[in-house]
Amino acid sequence: MHQKIKNKNILITGGAGFIGSNLARRLVADGNTITVADSLIPEYGGNSRNLKDIQNKISFSLSDVRDVAAINDLIKGHDYLFNLAGQTSHLDSMHDPITDLDINAKAQLSILEACRKHNPGIRIVFASTRQIYGKPKYLPVDEKHPRHPVDVNGINKIAGEQYHILYQEVYGIESSVLRLTNTYGPRMRIKDARQTFLGIWIRNLLEGKPLQVFGDGKQRRDYNYVEDVLDALLIAATEENAIGKAYNLGAPDPLSLEDTAKIMCQKTVGGDYQMVPFPKDRKAIDVGDFICDYSAFRDQFGWEPKVSFEEGIQRSIEYFREEIENYI
Amino acid sequence: MHQKIKNKNILITGGAGFIGSNLARRLVADGNTITVADSLIPEYGGNSRNLKDIQNKISFSLSDVRDVAAINDLIKGHDYLFNLAGQTSHLDSMHDPITDLDINAKAQLSILEACRKHNPGIRIVFASTRQIYGKPKYLPVDEKHPRHPVDVNGINKIAGEQYHILYQEVYGIESSVLRLTNTYGPRMRIKDARQTFLGIWIRNLLEGKPLQVFGDGKQRRDYNYVEDVLDALLIAATEENAIGKAYNLGAPDPLSLEDTAKIMCQKTVGGDYQMVPFPKDRKAIDVGDFICDYSAFRDQFGWEPKVSFEEGIQRSIEYFREEIENYI
Repeated sequence: MHQKIKNKNILITGGAGFIGSNLARRLVADGNTITVADSLIPEYGGNSRNLKDIQNKISFSLSDVRDVAAINDLIKGHDYLFNLAGQTSHLDSMHDPITDLDINAKAQLSILEACRKHNPGIRIVFASTRQIYGKPKYLPVDEKHPRHPVDVNGINKIAGEQYHILYQEVYGIESSVLRLTNTYGPRMRIKDARQTFLGIWIRNLLEGKPLQVFGDGKQRRDYNYVEDVLDALLIAATEENAIGKAYNLGAPDPLSLEDTAKIMCQKTVGGDYQMVPFPKDRKAIDVGDFICDYSAFRDQFGWEPKVSFEEGIQRSIEYFREEIENYI
Repeated sequence: MHQKIKNKNILITGGAGFIGSNLARRLVADGNTITVADSLIPEYGGNSRNLKDIQNKISFSLSDVRDVAAINDLIKGHDYLFNLAGQTSHLDSMHDPITDLDINAKAQLSILEACRKHNPGIRIVFASTRQIYGKPKYLPVDEKHPRHPVDVNGINKIAGEQYHILYQEVYGIESSVLRLTNTYGPRMRIKDARQTFLGIWIRNLLEGKPLQVFGDGKQRRDYNYVEDVLDALLIAATEENAIGKAYNLGAPDPLSLEDTAKIMCQKTVGGDYQMVPFPKDRKAIDVGDFICDYSAFRDQFGWEPKVSFEEGIQRSIEYFREEIENYI
């Protein structure tokens, strides 16, 4: 019962990335004309393998959202923009904060300026992150929770989403914001922990290495399977009541890190995990338990995750068992 | 009973501007060694006239906070940084949002990176703005009020202050943030409304033109005389309990725009005002009544504005009556 978009011209920034490529696949199947823009920078989520089976059905632009001229050109003629390009690594944002700002804040402002000048009728969905809230003051974390990020990434993502809301309010450019929690599934980055720790855990499992659980393993997290996130993106893009709003996503079945590791190990012969002390740079930005309250989005639009963690992680491991050499 | 800093090395970014130059004057008088950094870009607040009477007692660096190499060099060897450089015009931030981002967000991140690498023991006070809150949901606006800016400037200033708080929390670089409301006094920008409308009103009065009050004139504002703000900056710089915190400033005597105009007209022979409809670009970013709750800063540190609006505006008009040709 997700919303459908059909026969439209759609631009996806970060479209060779994990979520973007899965979205492109679904939108192509619904008869849309898709342009994927991606810089394919190795440290980020873009991977040409993600588009291999649909490469003849989409237009691909090798371009960086920081390239103002390219963005000005790309934005023209599209009905929808799924604005998914981003630097997602919290540690990278501390090691190279200016690059994080350029991608997650400055490029977003350039994209919105391009829309204002060249395509003010475009409909935008911007992918934000629960990282904007920082360490929870209460659980589950709803949209009213104070925003006190623990890394540069969270600060820049706040700016990125606020620009979208502002351009809606001042210029009428129709934008919606979704704040994603740990999203996982086929085509995610598993080379390292840059997207979420679930990526490196899948890799370690498939390579026969034990999963490393930091701290006491009791920190709880919520996970969304990518197909559920695609449903949410399409709802956000098509529901008029979502315009100018920012919503949390989330899941009804949060798990402790240790229980997460246990489930993942059960899915793989010989899978094992070990408890290890927090690395210092991780501890500095750890937020303890984190569970998002997604009831606003659920109650307003009827969205509810359909894929349990057990089921989703099973599908993910199956995908990567076949594909691992293309992702490491 | 304000705090004093004596015999220290102090860097003031935006130090040729309104608040920065008044601060430099006071700090020089207390025996400190002052370096003023200012780009003197005509659209911003820097004006070499502001430093004329102390030019032989300070070091002046003609440099832009966006110049990373200059900032890396400047930051070394200073005990305090009063980080006052900023783009303050709300309309300019909408007409040229990228420049606003570069100054109010990106340069701030570069400054903090420079501190982290070259002078982590420095003590910083960052000047933010009540503009981060947007249109008030309740009055007076305290520090817990949601931040929903109505212009790009407000969004970038949020990022600027959050970087300061983050670098304190993660790296221990001691920063405090003050959120200023309408600050006025000698050496303010009166050429136009880029700092506050009080500037252009002072100019109009002295040039015999009527003040223009937008809308019905009932919108209330609070004003701080610059010497009171200097007291607050020095408290923020010297009180250990202010480290890692952000505080509103404000005033006990908010006034409607029409009453503000009346008081100002009384101070000037032949002064007059007229009610005019809102210009469209102003209306889009107008926030209605705005009164800041400064009780957190008052209760914790004993700060209270000492100069009434009547007294402060009198002193300001006297200053500019002599100096107007250097400010228009």
